[in-house]
Amino acid sequence: MRKLYLIGIGAGNPEYITVQAIKALNVVDVFFFMDKGEAKQDLVTLRKEICERYVENRSYRVVEVDDPVRDPTISDYTTRVELWHRQRALVYEEMVAKELEEDQCGAFLVWGDPSLYDSTLRIIEHITARGRLCFEFEVIPGITSIQALAARHKITLNGIGESIVITTGRQLSAGLSGAAARTIVMLDGQCSFNNVLDEELDIFWGAYLGMGEEILLSGKLSEIASRIEEVRHERRQRNGWIMDTYLLSKPSEAG
Amino acid sequence: MRKLYLIGIGAGNPEYITVQAIKALNVVDVFFFMDKGEAKQDLVTLRKEICERYVENRSYRVVEVDDPVRDPTISDYTTRVELWHRQRALVYEEMVAKELEEDQCGAFLVWGDPSLYDSTLRIIEHITARGRLCFEFEVIPGITSIQALAARHKITLNGIGESIVITTGRQLSAGLSGAAARTIVMLDGQCSFNNVLDEELDIFWGAYLGMGEEILLSGKLSEIASRIEEVRHERRQRNGWIMDTYLLSKPSEAG
Ligand SMILES: C[S@@+](CC[C@H](N)C(=O)[O-])C[C@H]1O[C@@H](n2cnc3c(N)ncnc32)[C@H](O)[C@@H]1O
Ligand SMILES: C[S@@+](CC[C@H](N)C(=O)[O-])C[C@H]1O[C@@H](n2cnc3c(N)ncnc32)[C@H](O)[C@@H]1O
Repeated sequence: MRKLYLIGIGAGNPEYITVQAIKALNVVDVFFFMDKGEAKQDLVTLRKEICERYVENRSYRVVEVDDPVRDPTISDYTTRVELWHRQRALVYEEMVAKELEEDQCGAFLVWGDPSLYDSTLRIIEHITARGRLCFEFEVIPGITSIQALAARHKITLNGIGESIVITTGRQLSAGLSGAAARTIVMLDGQCSFNNVLDEELDIFWGAYLGMGEEILLSGKLSEIASRIEEVRHERRQRNGWIMDTYLLSKPSEAG
Repeated sequence: MRKLYLIGIGAGNPEYITVQAIKALNVVDVFFFMDKGEAKQDLVTLRKEICERYVENRSYRVVEVDDPVRDPTISDYTTRVELWHRQRALVYEEMVAKELEEDQCGAFLVWGDPSLYDSTLRIIEHITARGRLCFEFEVIPGITSIQALAARHKITLNGIGESIVITTGRQLSAGLSGAAARTIVMLDGQCSFNNVLDEELDIFWGAYLGMGEEILLSGKLSEIASRIEEVRHERRQRNGWIMDTYLLSKPSEAG
């Protein structure tokens, strides 16, 4: 039977990879690369480097996939994304059927951890639900950008005994959810922290975490928000892309 | 200058360890073990196995620390825990000063990731704040039990574009925070999911994740809550300890 691995490769530093992931890399016949967006070329290069560095004495193939584009005419976010996942499921199903022999192993290398704001698992589920392609699959966890953020700033994610919220820039633009003292924000292309400047918050911000270009900034949100926006803009221009994550915390809570 | 590492070793499977962590293990002179509670002996054994398995051609020492006990007469949870951290800071400071020479490296091996419901980082901060002991320190991320839970159940933590709440059994016993469709619960010795049986929820439960005794259960919360409680009780009796984590999700959201 075909086997598919979803391998979390960690978010940035190639040494975030786990022993379990390295073992899995070493049984794979075909790697499917399916990056998209601004960072595409660099992410492909990074994945290739990971294969070269950690796969030993084994030949493998790399298949690069062109992703279908999201339909911009669908206004509801969730509907648009769900439809796009279904389209991608068709593309991936065809590709796996074509490129992977019955007794071979294929792998998707997922940035960070496969369970956190990544669609590969959902796409695999759509393929399973269609029931045309028979395969086993296994998920291998990886270090997320959240853990990279905390480690590099040397902070804890939670206050003592307290809850944590993980959210997106899109959600934050509607305001902070009152519940938790600490909120982690991902997928924010709009500097949505500007919407909560009047709440007294500290920010721990990181971009390109674990990578050579890593930037860390922290302080009172109201004081450094514009500096972060500036740095973010400038670096994004220079590199062609940026990935950043941050923790917002009620003061004297973080650490 | 002395150097201290806080190394996340992953939550359960010894192969969750990262390449970065293995590199750090291999420069350490003294490992400080400071486990406590029911699982103490097994956690010490597991840490020793990790050192034996991953440290190569290097001699190191292991120092086991007896933790001070929390003062049960302090009723406020946060105050009690904070005071306990300060006491532990004194114990650890003395121990590091005594056991680690000026140019040596020490390490604390942290279960899972050092940023998630773990006090070692806070203790190190107390030592730094006291200013009597001079040292560098570095934090190395590890795979959390949350990622282990998601990987083993093959689920995503977030709904498409949605927020996630991470909380404790103690917090959940006061009810579900309305904000997020998915809530992850840790540190729950009381089966606090019993307090939210009437909300229509699915549960993805895992105990001893990544370990030989791993148990996974999932389904409608109202239907399997008592089964989970039973299994939890029985396994805890048998092993002397249990560690479990779960995801609560509004139905047809998870996956
Ligand atoms: C599509 S999500 C994927 C998250 C990934 N699965 C993980 O575990 O971190 C992409 C978002 O993750 C965050 N991110 C990923 N890698 C990052 C890095 N190296 N530095 C900062 N943020 C990062 C950013 O918020 C980015 O918008
Ligand atoms: C003190 S916290 C430490 C968490 C750890 N730092 C992490 O990153 O997962 C201990 C709690 O983590 C969860 N936990 C840790 N390891 C686990 C495992 N192998 N299986 C299930 N739950 C686990 C349980 O909820 C437990 O009560």
